[in-house]
Amino acid sequence: MDSFTVKAYGTVAQDIPLEEMHIQRREVLPKDVEIEILYCGVCHTDLHKSRNDWGGSTYPVVPGHEIVGRVTKVGKEALKYRIGDLVAVGCLVDSCRTCPNCQKDLEQYCLNGFTVTYGGTDKHLGGSTYGGYAEKIVVDEDFVLKVPENVDAAAIAPVLCAGITVWSPLRHWKVGEGSKVAIIGLGGLGHMGIKLAKGLGAEVTLFSRSAEKAADATRLGADHVVISTSDTDMKSVAGKFDLIIDTVPYDHDITPYMHTLATDGTLVLVGYFGDFEKKFSTLPLYMRRSVVGSVIGGIAETQELLDFCGKTGIVSDIEMIDIQNVNEAFERMEKGDVRYRFVIDMKSLKN
Amino acid sequence: MDSFTVKAYGTVAQDIPLEEMHIQRREVLPKDVEIEILYCGVCHTDLHKSRNDWGGSTYPVVPGHEIVGRVTKVGKEALKYRIGDLVAVGCLVDSCRTCPNCQKDLEQYCLNGFTVTYGGTDKHLGGSTYGGYAEKIVVDEDFVLKVPENVDAAAIAPVLCAGITVWSPLRHWKVGEGSKVAIIGLGGLGHMGIKLAKGLGAEVTLFSRSAEKAADATRLGADHVVISTSDTDMKSVAGKFDLIIDTVPYDHDITPYMHTLATDGTLVLVGYFGDFEKKFSTLPLYMRRSVVGSVIGGIAETQELLDFCGKTGIVSDIEMIDIQNVNEAFERMEKGDVRYRFVIDMKSLKN
Repeated sequence: MDSFTVKAYGTVAQDIPLEEMHIQRREVLPKDVEIEILYCGVCHTDLHKSRNDWGGSTYPVVPGHEIVGRVTKVGKEALKYRIGDLVAVGCLVDSCRTCPNCQKDLEQYCLNGFTVTYGGTDKHLGGSTYGGYAEKIVVDEDFVLKVPENVDAAAIAPVLCAGITVWSPLRHWKVGEGSKVAIIGLGGLGHMGIKLAKGLGAEVTLFSRSAEKAADATRLGADHVVISTSDTDMKSVAGKFDLIIDTVPYDHDITPYMHTLATDGTLVLVGYFGDFEKKFSTLPLYMRRSVVGSVIGGIAETQELLDFCGKTGIVSDIEMIDIQNVNEAFERMEKGDVRYRFVIDMKSLKN
Repeated sequence: MDSFTVKAYGTVAQDIPLEEMHIQRREVLPKDVEIEILYCGVCHTDLHKSRNDWGGSTYPVVPGHEIVGRVTKVGKEALKYRIGDLVAVGCLVDSCRTCPNCQKDLEQYCLNGFTVTYGGTDKHLGGSTYGGYAEKIVVDEDFVLKVPENVDAAAIAPVLCAGITVWSPLRHWKVGEGSKVAIIGLGGLGHMGIKLAKGLGAEVTLFSRSAEKAADATRLGADHVVISTSDTDMKSVAGKFDLIIDTVPYDHDITPYMHTLATDGTLVLVGYFGDFEKKFSTLPLYMRRSVVGSVIGGIAETQELLDFCGKTGIVSDIEMIDIQNVNEAFERMEKGDVRYRFVIDMKSLKN
């Protein structure tokens, strides 16, 4: 298969910092779109995959799944986009398209396994897929999204992962005017959770371990901040919430939060999938309170979110960096020292 | 308040078998219905409350919340029933009626605490409420249910607790033609789960630890039996079920069952509320699979179930006993030696 070389940033082993490298992209196939990458958000997954924290990384790893760019070429049968269009690519670049979940626009739950944007199996060139820390990417048009031209193209990048991860549960559980929504944790996902839930008309509460984040939460749109380490605070919201989006990315005890759900309320885990060390009590579940997990979102749902961002002007709070500073950004991100998402200005890759 | 004496069967302490005693019932208030009890189902709760297994029992305990009888008197403003009507009383005899849940016909989740049929606080006479192991009961008409005359009145008794406990989740999660439902455990609840899910048009699977129950499950209407201790069996149903009703009344590992849920599938705990000793893994939840708890059902929903039983002829499989044998029945029930519910012929209390 025809391919071409692009400059990228990645790592060849788990203990080596990211550095400039060259990778291959396929020449556009009939249904493909070639995109010059303008901005790429920096997600925690980028760090974990680079360092093989979860095992299973295949090197080189070229991270990046919050991609915004302009169309530079289209395949002969690709009809959705034209050269110059502002587009985006998120966490998926392909799926089986035939399983019941794909048929229901739930590509993120493709029963045959979707193709992740980086670190997946490249069906065309073989080897791994490479992500958005690169000059260009080539993606089937069905997995390319249209970006509204009226919003900050850099600040929309984190919407492709952080945004859709909270949007999907907000929409699936039908959040709107009158809904009472709580967000656990104020990071990349949490800050988008506040903005989007508020944008949908909900009354929004942030659960936080410290009072420090209260001012920022309010600025982002939260109506209330509840300090989760305070029994008094927690009791004041007993039985209150229709939906809690739990963005905490490590093991934690969800029991105190379960008691703050209303009858038929749902706590959605989006940050942590693994064992709970502490014994799990099913007692708070008895009022049809659910615990459920959700990962990213489907393509149609992501487009819906981008359109919503265009309509409302909601984007991510970002700090722009050059790609040469991405290793430092990883370190700062580990300490929670970012409000609330790093976005790489991909022009810097030309330096 | 005026009251009268009735013969009953109960216990005055946790280590004493049930025996004949006399209790007081209030004279009908304007909205009350007095019922002569014909049949009363024997629920595991009766045993646990009699023996104070869960703590908090106040003696004497007169169990029984699967009550079927005939109206013998009605209050001046009670308009729903007439003398001679075949009626039933389940697990609730009152609730606050004003909280948001009561307003939504979810009296079983009354935010101010509903009044349980026995062992609750008697708002009228003070002390404890007494259940259906008695000649008569007096209940506000709003908590009395109409029993179809075309079904076996004895075999309908277990519908009031075992039946509604599985019916409520079947209806709440909209089970119907094409639904794939699994039931974990074949006891009082499980056998009603099979019959009712089948009655609603679902494809029904029983999860059982042993093959012994397969024939009976099939007779009750199950399309499939999956042996939960067989990896091969469990793998054959991976990702299959829309709804699993877990009737197991003790601590157990739900993880293997979670993997058998389809995307957006729900496992409803109806038998066990407490800690899971084994570490709980949130991994299988990622495809929007939920874990949720459900207890009994509301009054309107229970009436709907009784009407459904009248229409379809579905009732419980019962073994009729005299009240004098209830202690022996408790012992047999503990060993699972009943197919599938004991029902007391209350005529025997006259002996």
